[in-house]
Amino acid sequence: MIRVVKIGGNVVDNPELLKKFVKDFAAMPGMKVLVHGGGVMASQMQKAMGMAPQMVEGRRVTDEDTLRVVTMVYAGWCNKNITTLLQAEGCNAIGLCGADGNAIKARKRAPMFVESLGTEVDYGYVGDVTGDCVNAGFIYSLLEKGMVPVFSAINHDGEGNLLNTNADTIASSVATAIANYRYRSPKDVCCRCEECTHCSDDGRLTHETELVFCFEKDGVLYDKEDDASVIPVIDRNRFAELKTEGRVADGMIPKLANSFKAIDNGVARVMIKHARNLNSSIGTTLI
Amino acid sequence: MIRVVKIGGNVVDNPELLKKFVKDFAAMPGMKVLVHGGGVMASQMQKAMGMAPQMVEGRRVTDEDTLRVVTMVYAGWCNKNITTLLQAEGCNAIGLCGADGNAIKARKRAPMFVESLGTEVDYGYVGDVTGDCVNAGFIYSLLEKGMVPVFSAINHDGEGNLLNTNADTIASSVATAIANYRYRSPKDVCCRCEECTHCSDDGRLTHETELVFCFEKDGVLYDKEDDASVIPVIDRNRFAELKTEGRVADGMIPKLANSFKAIDNGVARVMIKHARNLNSSIGTTLI
Repeated sequence: MIRVVKIGGNVVDNPELLKKFVKDFAAMPGMKVLVHGGGVMASQMQKAMGMAPQMVEGRRVTDEDTLRVVTMVYAGWCNKNITTLLQAEGCNAIGLCGADGNAIKARKRAPMFVESLGTEVDYGYVGDVTGDCVNAGFIYSLLEKGMVPVFSAINHDGEGNLLNTNADTIASSVATAIANYRYRSPKDVCCRCEECTHCSDDGRLTHETELVFCFEKDGVLYDKEDDASVIPVIDRNRFAELKTEGRVADGMIPKLANSFKAIDNGVARVMIKHARNLNSSIGTTLI
Repeated sequence: MIRVVKIGGNVVDNPELLKKFVKDFAAMPGMKVLVHGGGVMASQMQKAMGMAPQMVEGRRVTDEDTLRVVTMVYAGWCNKNITTLLQAEGCNAIGLCGADGNAIKARKRAPMFVESLGTEVDYGYVGDVTGDCVNAGFIYSLLEKGMVPVFSAINHDGEGNLLNTNADTIASSVATAIANYRYRSPKDVCCRCEECTHCSDDGRLTHETELVFCFEKDGVLYDKEDDASVIPVIDRNRFAELKTEGRVADGMIPKLANSFKAIDNGVARVMIKHARNLNSSIGTTLI
């Protein structure tokens, strides 16, 4: 199995939680990929440099100066700090942005009409990514060597520009691409890798892929006032019921919809859990 | 042949020169590694954030806040910008710091007596590196796949700390490590790689390694007032003569001494040239 784990600001910004997470992630067996968000440091840096962070529907409008700051913070400090901490735990991490090894190529977002503002917004150096933007062969070649790719959400357009992208989308795109990657060994036989879940008749190899979103709750809650009301398993029917009952918080609906899309596209299952529970069974499994 | 090329602030800080250099570097045939310095951006960032850069004998005293800034600037913006520009030229670059894939492990510098100040200086998060700190096997595995490692001078100590190191030293350490790396293919035979200069009897493979320092002059000058007086070739005897004649500028003596040390340790030759002349013969060759 290959696991793609995504952590956000609640982990990156919290040194104690990050330390625990890094230990747990390093101890997690099997092939794995980490995708991290950036937390509040980019906005703090912008303010320290006299810039005014501008967010539209949760996305940062990214002019040239802002691109420099988010690249420094996400692909620089956050990415290298996490990589170094993982190395100290014996996990052979390799910190990457999408330009590195041409791992992920993003499409620059065209100016778009934003309903909540009633106007067109040019997000600047913001990119969008889908599974077919991901160089799964390169990522797999690292996994195969026992390495652990650690992605920031900074990618490139292949024309010399870096682009600021969304870490949740990077995680689901990487998971989808890996789930669909078929490895053909130089001799067209099974590589005998212990991770291999099955080899098909023509000697190609596929891996079951799991996507894990770590966030600030223990899972999807049935009662959003009650942290203990984690729903253990949600399938498509249950998701429809929960929506009808008004049980799923507004912010959670796109996350779940995207997760089911990843499942539609080949990911075996999606887990939604708190970062401190990485290696425990507490959380919600989407199937 | 494998070439290790080092560029400093005069290239990184100059968009026009960087653009030309990136084109020339991408067009350079064969296996190659790029090592870059950081230029003046780190000091500018420190000042913008209300910090006072402190340099002792050309090295930046690196406390925790300074470490964060140099990691953001060198391993973040500079590294990812160069990597993205190279990708746009069809060069499959991969930007790395020493923590990535455990590529380079540095030793934290102990507080040391600095003669010019007459006192002991604690440089903080500053590291020193030699050839045996370099994971040549990992670097070679990337080269073998046609990838081009791009190193910033940020490394790690293996215990969870990033360290600020010297880019010239990183370049000569990487070149020395690669020059001494003996590759054994899984079948103990020559890999038939076209870059291979010779295969020894037991099937191991070695590569001739060249180190190229790009700097702000066309080469080592016989008359430092005359930019046209580039000395084409310097061997050890000529170096001794030039020192006796007082022909080598003070700042150049340690650079040349370090270059001859790299040659003593297996590097085939060292070139000292202007970045704009990367693919021309103008420059000084040390043998």
